[in-house]
Amino acid sequence: MSTFGQYFKVTTYGESHCRSVGCIVDGVPPGMELTEDDIQPQMTRRRPGQSALTTPRNEMDLVEIQSGTEFGVTLGTPIAMIVRNKDQRPHDYGNKTMDLYPRPSHADWTYLEKYGVKASSGGGRSSARETIGRVAASAIAEKYLKLSYGIEIVAFVSSVGSVHMFPPTATHPTPSTNPAFLSLIDSISREKVDEFVPVRCPDKAASEKMAEYIADFRDRQDSIGGTVTCVIRNVPSGLGEPCFDKMEALLAHAMLSIPATKGFEIGSGFGGCEVPGSTHNDPFILAPEVPPLETGATKNGIPRPKLTTKTNNSGGIQGGITNGAPIYFRVAFKPPATIGQAQQTSTYDGDAEGVLEAKGRHDPCVVPRAVPIVEAMAALAVVDALMAQQSRQMTRNLLPPLKQTIPAAKSALETEANEKHGVNGVAK
Amino acid sequence: MSTFGQYFKVTTYGESHCRSVGCIVDGVPPGMELTEDDIQPQMTRRRPGQSALTTPRNEMDLVEIQSGTEFGVTLGTPIAMIVRNKDQRPHDYGNKTMDLYPRPSHADWTYLEKYGVKASSGGGRSSARETIGRVAASAIAEKYLKLSYGIEIVAFVSSVGSVHMFPPTATHPTPSTNPAFLSLIDSISREKVDEFVPVRCPDKAASEKMAEYIADFRDRQDSIGGTVTCVIRNVPSGLGEPCFDKMEALLAHAMLSIPATKGFEIGSGFGGCEVPGSTHNDPFILAPEVPPLETGATKNGIPRPKLTTKTNNSGGIQGGITNGAPIYFRVAFKPPATIGQAQQTSTYDGDAEGVLEAKGRHDPCVVPRAVPIVEAMAALAVVDALMAQQSRQMTRNLLPPLKQTIPAAKSALETEANEKHGVNGVAK
Amino acid sequence: MSTFGQYFKVTTYGESHCRSVGCIVDGVPPGMELTEDDIQPQMTRRRPGQSALTTPRNEMDLVEIQSGTEFGVTLGTPIAMIVRNKDQRPHDYGNKTMDLYPRPSHADWTYLEKYGVKASSGGGRSSARETIGRVAASAIAEKYLKLSYGIEIVAFVSSVGSVHMFPPTATHPTPSTNPAFLSLIDSISREKVDEFVPVRCPDKAASEKMAEYIADFRDRQDSIGGTVTCVIRNVPSGLGEPCFDKMEALLAHAMLSIPATKGFEIGSGFGGCEVPGSTHNDPFILAPEVPPLETGATKNGIPRPKLTTKTNNSGGIQGGITNGAPIYFRVAFKPPATIGQAQQTSTYDGDAEGVLEAKGRHDPCVVPRAVPIVEAMAALAVVDALMAQQSRQMTRNLLPPLKQTIPAAKSALETEANEKHGVNGVAK
Amino acid sequence: MSTFGQYFKVTTYGESHCRSVGCIVDGVPPGMELTEDDIQPQMTRRRPGQSALTTPRNEMDLVEIQSGTEFGVTLGTPIAMIVRNKDQRPHDYGNKTMDLYPRPSHADWTYLEKYGVKASSGGGRSSARETIGRVAASAIAEKYLKLSYGIEIVAFVSSVGSVHMFPPTATHPTPSTNPAFLSLIDSISREKVDEFVPVRCPDKAASEKMAEYIADFRDRQDSIGGTVTCVIRNVPSGLGEPCFDKMEALLAHAMLSIPATKGFEIGSGFGGCEVPGSTHNDPFILAPEVPPLETGATKNGIPRPKLTTKTNNSGGIQGGITNGAPIYFRVAFKPPATIGQAQQTSTYDGDAEGVLEAKGRHDPCVVPRAVPIVEAMAALAVVDALMAQQSRQMTRNLLPPLKQTIPAAKSALETEANEKHGVNGVAK
Repeated sequence: MSTFGQYFKVTTYGESHCRSVGCIVDGVPPGMELTEDDIQPQMTRRRPGQSALTTPRNEMDLVEIQSGTEFGVTLGTPIAMIVRNKDQRPHDYGNKTMDLYPRPSHADWTYLEKYGVKASSGGGRSSARETIGRVAASAIAEKYLKLSYGIEIVAFVSSVGSVHMFPPTATHPTPSTNPAFLSLIDSISREKVDEFVPVRCPDKAASEKMAEYIADFRDRQDSIGGTVTCVIRNVPSGLGEPCFDKMEALLAHAMLSIPATKGFEIGSGFGGCEVPGSTHNDPFILAPEVPPLETGATKNGIPRPKLTTKTNNSGGIQGGITNGAPIYFRVAFKPPATIGQAQQTSTYDGDAEGVLEAKGRHDPCVVPRAVPIVEAMAALAVVDALMAQQSRQMTRNLLPPLKQTIPAAKSALETEANEKHGVNGVAK
Repeated sequence: MSTFGQYFKVTTYGESHCRSVGCIVDGVPPGMELTEDDIQPQMTRRRPGQSALTTPRNEMDLVEIQSGTEFGVTLGTPIAMIVRNKDQRPHDYGNKTMDLYPRPSHADWTYLEKYGVKASSGGGRSSARETIGRVAASAIAEKYLKLSYGIEIVAFVSSVGSVHMFPPTATHPTPSTNPAFLSLIDSISREKVDEFVPVRCPDKAASEKMAEYIADFRDRQDSIGGTVTCVIRNVPSGLGEPCFDKMEALLAHAMLSIPATKGFEIGSGFGGCEVPGSTHNDPFILAPEVPPLETGATKNGIPRPKLTTKTNNSGGIQGGITNGAPIYFRVAFKPPATIGQAQQTSTYDGDAEGVLEAKGRHDPCVVPRAVPIVEAMAALAVVDALMAQQSRQMTRNLLPPLKQTIPAAKSALETEANEKHGVNGVAK
Repeated sequence: MSTFGQYFKVTTYGESHCRSVGCIVDGVPPGMELTEDDIQPQMTRRRPGQSALTTPRNEMDLVEIQSGTEFGVTLGTPIAMIVRNKDQRPHDYGNKTMDLYPRPSHADWTYLEKYGVKASSGGGRSSARETIGRVAASAIAEKYLKLSYGIEIVAFVSSVGSVHMFPPTATHPTPSTNPAFLSLIDSISREKVDEFVPVRCPDKAASEKMAEYIADFRDRQDSIGGTVTCVIRNVPSGLGEPCFDKMEALLAHAMLSIPATKGFEIGSGFGGCEVPGSTHNDPFILAPEVPPLETGATKNGIPRPKLTTKTNNSGGIQGGITNGAPIYFRVAFKPPATIGQAQQTSTYDGDAEGVLEAKGRHDPCVVPRAVPIVEAMAALAVVDALMAQQSRQMTRNLLPPLKQTIPAAKSALETEANEKHGVNGVAK
Repeated sequence: MSTFGQYFKVTTYGESHCRSVGCIVDGVPPGMELTEDDIQPQMTRRRPGQSALTTPRNEMDLVEIQSGTEFGVTLGTPIAMIVRNKDQRPHDYGNKTMDLYPRPSHADWTYLEKYGVKASSGGGRSSARETIGRVAASAIAEKYLKLSYGIEIVAFVSSVGSVHMFPPTATHPTPSTNPAFLSLIDSISREKVDEFVPVRCPDKAASEKMAEYIADFRDRQDSIGGTVTCVIRNVPSGLGEPCFDKMEALLAHAMLSIPATKGFEIGSGFGGCEVPGSTHNDPFILAPEVPPLETGATKNGIPRPKLTTKTNNSGGIQGGITNGAPIYFRVAFKPPATIGQAQQTSTYDGDAEGVLEAKGRHDPCVVPRAVPIVEAMAALAVVDALMAQQSRQMTRNLLPPLKQTIPAAKSALETEANEKHGVNGVAK
């Protein structure tokens, strides 16, 4: 349905051509400072029309908080947010042939099959405009994640068509084993990524190549896909719920719910299938000391884990549960279905074939615009898993302490020694 | 948590070394013939120990229905199923060092971080044994899907390490554009796949190469990953719920909840990012006539769509909703974390580093065994989406008919013509 | 949280003094004609200020549909509705003492305990204004219920203080056994109830007595409670989900979620505890023929049951499942907590006691205004249970028919006769 | 469906005559000592056959934990529990006429209408035996509630037919205003209640009168209803989720899900509708000091509130949220439908009327047996609300503190004084 999350519950609404789009966010922590100023920046980052490479429609997308705050502080009650659809032009896409033919690889046909009603905009809720509610909601989530644990979420374009920032090689079938990649995800910031607008690939050479590549598709009235890589840093350990709601399953669900996505991979991903286990396994090492947050928040929260891993092919998740290392993943976006070229296809009723041509200018590649949406869905998946684990954490904090939760090194080794010598009569 | 699905709701329980593992399935259609004989076959297919390539533990895994049926017919009430853990040996994995060290890339560490309690088996619910409940539940789902719509779900091994059944090429960065692949997924059956046990890759040459490849890793006490491809045929159109529960999002969630998975791609997937939109778009054509099911079921169900697509880069899903064409996807599995080689790592408390060696024989590659589990999770995702859509379908069947849901070809074109000529006074 | 329903999912938002109140309704059947005109009437019925007996604040409460319809037809996508809070005066309640003292039996104190933040309006979401979203959402549900099955929901005031429309007697400890009551609920309409505004008790004598009774409390600056009885007619059989979501459990949940409610009883209710089983049991009889709906809808829906009950102490629900007879129940509302009289109480921090006086005019009795809210929540509970059962109904329609679902009278009696004579060798 | 709770999630299964009944409990706090010995006592208390007044079937009901614990400690993973149905005799109820006639006011008819399949036991899941899973699950919840906050839940029989422990009077239309009642609920214990087995009404005179009253109905082969009152002490403040999941709504849902229930009232309840607001309002007073729990748990949990109320007509809940005072409520149970007397009714297919007689001995009054089931459902409702609030509590603990959450008495009064004098230029 149109709801995401169990604890931090986001319900979105709105098509391209109705009065407004927006959302209700239920479960927002009470007592947090929050105004529209916290939300608008990501709204603006997701806005189309930021460059010649992307669609030129200029939508302002000003968000208005309707409820759930008073004097700039969250009340703990549902926060409704709306963004008006200022530009309500149902038949703006250029020709009436479109009413007759379902657009290939669009949602026009499947929406009609599902609902039995044809919206004038085709597949209304499949529009990129639907993501406005998600981005607005996630800005609240992100603020909480930042204040409570210093969590940072940064996405960037990692490939466009066949142009990759880290092309797979025999040595590194996945970037996970490549130190340059690990170093990048440790330090990359949104500011850095936005220096590379319009492409948002934080590498000068790759970025320029991608821009040219996209321009080429644009000029041929064609389109091309690409991938977005996202890293989430400072996530506490223990997030993700066995067995169906593993952290990577929640992230995969979140990402594949974004329009135009075709794939998701966590950590080493598909390339990791080609790395031997002996290399792929991440050995444990003592975690470095982390300075306390300026907000002073951490002392009441989930403590930082004692251990971390030397490598991070796991992408910060093991057994479906976060281990405190950076989570990173990659999302595939298909080439946009709307292209200027003529396409042979069938009418809705199958009675005739014909040629469909989209007029106007279209976005030849959505990945640069997808960056803030990937970040948004990552924030929603993480905040929900965090609240689930915090609930468990507090629940068990109230129980009388257990005598022993892990074997103490010394005694366990002694036991082992004894067993080796058969002291306990156990055959070796 | 441990529940999957909203309509066909599966809740599983059980660790490796407790009394039993199993599940409760709520929402099973009433009035369906069902006995253990419907469930045991998939249980047996997922069983380890079927060849020298996989782990030799011989578990019988006999399923017992506890409730929800009478005289071999489902009552519509919850069906509980249990499989006893006959072999309850908590410290069977070989050495006590394991109690001291969290195994690299296993769930031992993260389970302890999450729950604050160390289970003797490490990460109990992350065990492959947990999947028994899923497979049992899905056998019920599969029976219903078969009876009601003739839905078929078949998975097979598509790569092991760098050995691919359909290696990516410049022409076909994704197998989706390869006619040989499309032909395979149109016809492949479980019987055919099982002819290729132990590898379950339905191609003689690839299968043999994979077997050798795995044996090589086994001999080096190492492990390797691989991918499983799955196809779902005869799915009605209209399944998948905008916007967060798109069909591909539900499948991604389902797949990434399987232990050891690292990635998911639908239709053209990651490779599809490198195909131009003009090629990637799937034109609509009139769908071929489909003979009615022998069960006679289809006449009351969701009707077959009039249209289908000429190509199928969408993988049967557009805008998050099924279009009636085969759904297919690929899942990545990492190399198993348990290897015979010595690994340098840290103790739980971080006080010491040491060397961990796993004794005994271990599964060098899990993909062949993962095949029925992928099928199981696919069935659970599809049955839930199907029941959601059937609910909507019946709901709208009761409403008075609307005058017009799609533009009739003739009138729409006339209107267009009129508009072009400004007949209706609408400024162009 | 702020969501009600699994299939017809209503999420509300809004406090008394924020920009707007409203809701998102997800799961609305597609293809239903719907405009604001379908929604406004119940909004207006719930509006305060309709008489001297109720609070004089004049709120217009104009509802605006934001999404989910096009050209007056539902798209099947979420319908967002908002009602602006035109009168945003945070400190309108009269004195600043209120900021210092939590009002007795109000939500001021518990909201602060829960959220740690004091809203200027006290317990914002506990305001009657919050029910606007519910009433708006339920108007959509009601339209569907009417079109699909001719379902009618009518509530009325059945008691105010000690003035009862059907006072309990030794013969009739519950009105359920009283033919006059049963006849009333069979025929009562909203139009009839509204003839008795401001009290909404559809009995001239009782209504007048209640009006005087309320006026007396108003004059003494005191308040009084009362009960609302509600009947739901033409509900299909089979609604309600064993075992936790029995129809009466869903209704009880729905009713006790209305502000100021203190109790719920279904059918014979508390009085029914005092009726012997031999009287209380409802014998089955053949159901009368029901003419088909003018909408023609019924032929595809859940069929009317063959049987009904001679009496209806069950209130239309047996074993948690509807049997097709009218559902009726009664809801208790406490005396409003806001009274003009001075009250001795404590400050928030417990440091001082003091006297609290509410200025202005207050509603001495909420039951007349509660009538449309009770109807609204009844509609939301029923539509959700209906959609759940329709889902099951369609699911089982697709299965091959079973040989025998109930014993055929003749053969069963023969078997019984045989058994009595020991023909089958079964010892009696 | 068959699941209760969002955080402490209980899913039950089982009919009267299948292999076993039981449940899976997901969300159990990890690290709590737990064995079957914690669960069996309530199982035994709910067992029928404890006296001549109740049904003589002797079921042992031994519970077996299947999963989720190791060495007597909870792992945090799902706990499955099963109780075997030792006595599986599908046609044990005495005559075959029962197969032909749906029993009046039983679930036979509605189950058939819902599922289209007739279970041999009539309405299988509507059997009292279904409650076994609930009671088992709640024993875990109760242990946690006791350890973490010292929460005590005690239910007792408060009326049988017209025999009331606290009959309504003109002065006390509800026991809530009766000091004797308030004193009772402050101190009553399960041990005390069980001294009054078989009736479980903790008042010698009332108990004896009730026993005679029930015996009279038994001798006439008739049945009678009654009510159970339940108190929950030491509940933290802040539990219950606005607006649909108010604490009383959750309790009402829980109670009305118990077989044979007809009503629920919280605090002053239906009688409270007849009490003037000036009496009904509960003034706030400083709360007495409470000694810390022996378990030492409280210091990390939700703190005890500073205030309590002088009276408690609210029943411990205001605005849907607990205020820390004892929660109490009353539940109505109808007369059992199975009676020895002959009943005229119709066959399933409506073709014939006939006389139905139930053979054997039947329970003439279920309320004494209902006592532990009411306690069980109370525990499940409270633990879920507690975990929801603990999640929120921990979430907000991590935020930077707000400057001011409530008006400080002094400054607010000064402001008020200033305003009265118009110092700030605000017109009065």
